[in-house]
Amino acid sequence: MSTEFEPAIKLLTSAGNIRVWSVIVSIFGDLARDWGDEISGALMGQLTEQMGIKPEAVRVALHRLRKDGWIVSKKSGRSSNHSLTEMAFGESLAVRPRIYARHAEAPKEYHLLVAQPMTQADRSNLDARLMRDGYSLVAPGVYLGKGRKSPDPAGFFSMEGAISPPPHWLQQANAATDLRDEYILLEQVLDQLLEMAARKPTFTQTQTAALRVLVIHLWRRLLLRHPDLPDSFFPAAWPGISCRSKVHDLLDTLPRPTLATLQDRLS
Amino acid sequence: MSTEFEPAIKLLTSAGNIRVWSVIVSIFGDLARDWGDEISGALMGQLTEQMGIKPEAVRVALHRLRKDGWIVSKKSGRSSNHSLTEMAFGESLAVRPRIYARHAEAPKEYHLLVAQPMTQADRSNLDARLMRDGYSLVAPGVYLGKGRKSPDPAGFFSMEGAISPPPHWLQQANAATDLRDEYILLEQVLDQLLEMAARKPTFTQTQTAALRVLVIHLWRRLLLRHPDLPDSFFPAAWPGISCRSKVHDLLDTLPRPTLATLQDRLS
Repeated sequence: MSTEFEPAIKLLTSAGNIRVWSVIVSIFGDLARDWGDEISGALMGQLTEQMGIKPEAVRVALHRLRKDGWIVSKKSGRSSNHSLTEMAFGESLAVRPRIYARHAEAPKEYHLLVAQPMTQADRSNLDARLMRDGYSLVAPGVYLGKGRKSPDPAGFFSMEGAISPPPHWLQQANAATDLRDEYILLEQVLDQLLEMAARKPTFTQTQTAALRVLVIHLWRRLLLRHPDLPDSFFPAAWPGISCRSKVHDLLDTLPRPTLATLQDRLS
Repeated sequence: MSTEFEPAIKLLTSAGNIRVWSVIVSIFGDLARDWGDEISGALMGQLTEQMGIKPEAVRVALHRLRKDGWIVSKKSGRSSNHSLTEMAFGESLAVRPRIYARHAEAPKEYHLLVAQPMTQADRSNLDARLMRDGYSLVAPGVYLGKGRKSPDPAGFFSMEGAISPPPHWLQQANAATDLRDEYILLEQVLDQLLEMAARKPTFTQTQTAALRVLVIHLWRRLLLRHPDLPDSFFPAAWPGISCRSKVHDLLDTLPRPTLATLQDRLS
């Protein structure tokens, strides 16, 4: 067993406010890849224990996730097996490409929606709705979507086509200070973990799983907080860009164990 | 000589505030089609007289147009010949397709420019500059241009492509009430002139020229006051659309005499 494991976990769990239910979402997202994949109570216990999470906190979080319709739990004798609901599996699949892409997708085609004049309050509602649908805000009432327009958004003036390189002011608008600060913090953690990884520590499969889940957890927490835009939409020195490549460098050193392997190691 | 001429001229000259210098611009625009075309003082006198414009007013207007660099006048014995300057000929050529198009051009490709956030005053300046360059305003800071983007406008977020049918609110935004009222007035004049034309009056060549110049004059005065947009950008019942076809129906009954013919008739 590697002596690098404890410090690595410490680094990862101190890098931000870790919510247990959210970490469990990340566990499912990274390890339960196929529809119907189950994570046993015992495996869940072992992974979360590796992360320093108390069993009581796991119990509460699983309860919440069941209540929210994210997971279902099947009793099997004295233990239980947890799996994602259809809704959760769908949402998980939907964000998977974005989280795991080694390079941010840069589509050839986009569409712009221009909203009619409206009150600030109506615009805020519209902003929230469209950003939930993957649009990003270019200017007040102007929304950029990837690919061709779906027929859904009616009432907008819309154009489909190719974009020119985003201007400086738009890059700056996408570079919120608090987000930048959090990416810088993440990058420092990733740098330290990459230094450790360079010493080629040997982790158990469960340790590997725990580490990679936490790396992905911290990454997706920041990534999913802003619109999905190609690198050209951010300043050249945007830490989100360097974090992406460092996350992948790190994941390359922590290859994902299969669920079957992890279950086998339990007995 | 037709008895329809006087009432027709009366209709046309009472349809709006006719500025003499501007009518002379229309005379050149419709009759001096080729670079270097000259209109003699005598022909100018005859055409404007037909329109009921006093010689003194013509003299003042020609002086103003010379001062503004729109025309040059060459003395030739006791009379003079007037022609457009290069600048004026260029501007005249530039608006010609728009004025004479039987159907408003509906390009396949457009580009949108999205400006960065700025003060109201800066935006007003930008609006003026871009609308002079043929852009139309879609929303505050969002400008629509026909065809592909020229490399010039830097600092915008821009997209090139195809547009969807303009929504109702944008059609309404393009349908300013005062413009609508003026088009309705023009349409009434055109309707009365078309009724006269149905009686197949016979006009002299000079009368034909005077009438068609005034028709075009009233048409371009309204047309060039708003951006050059396809019909789909206006409400279905927009009087500018019906005016365009009626202008052309009327011009069909008033075929343009050549300058040579008009000059010949003078002697």
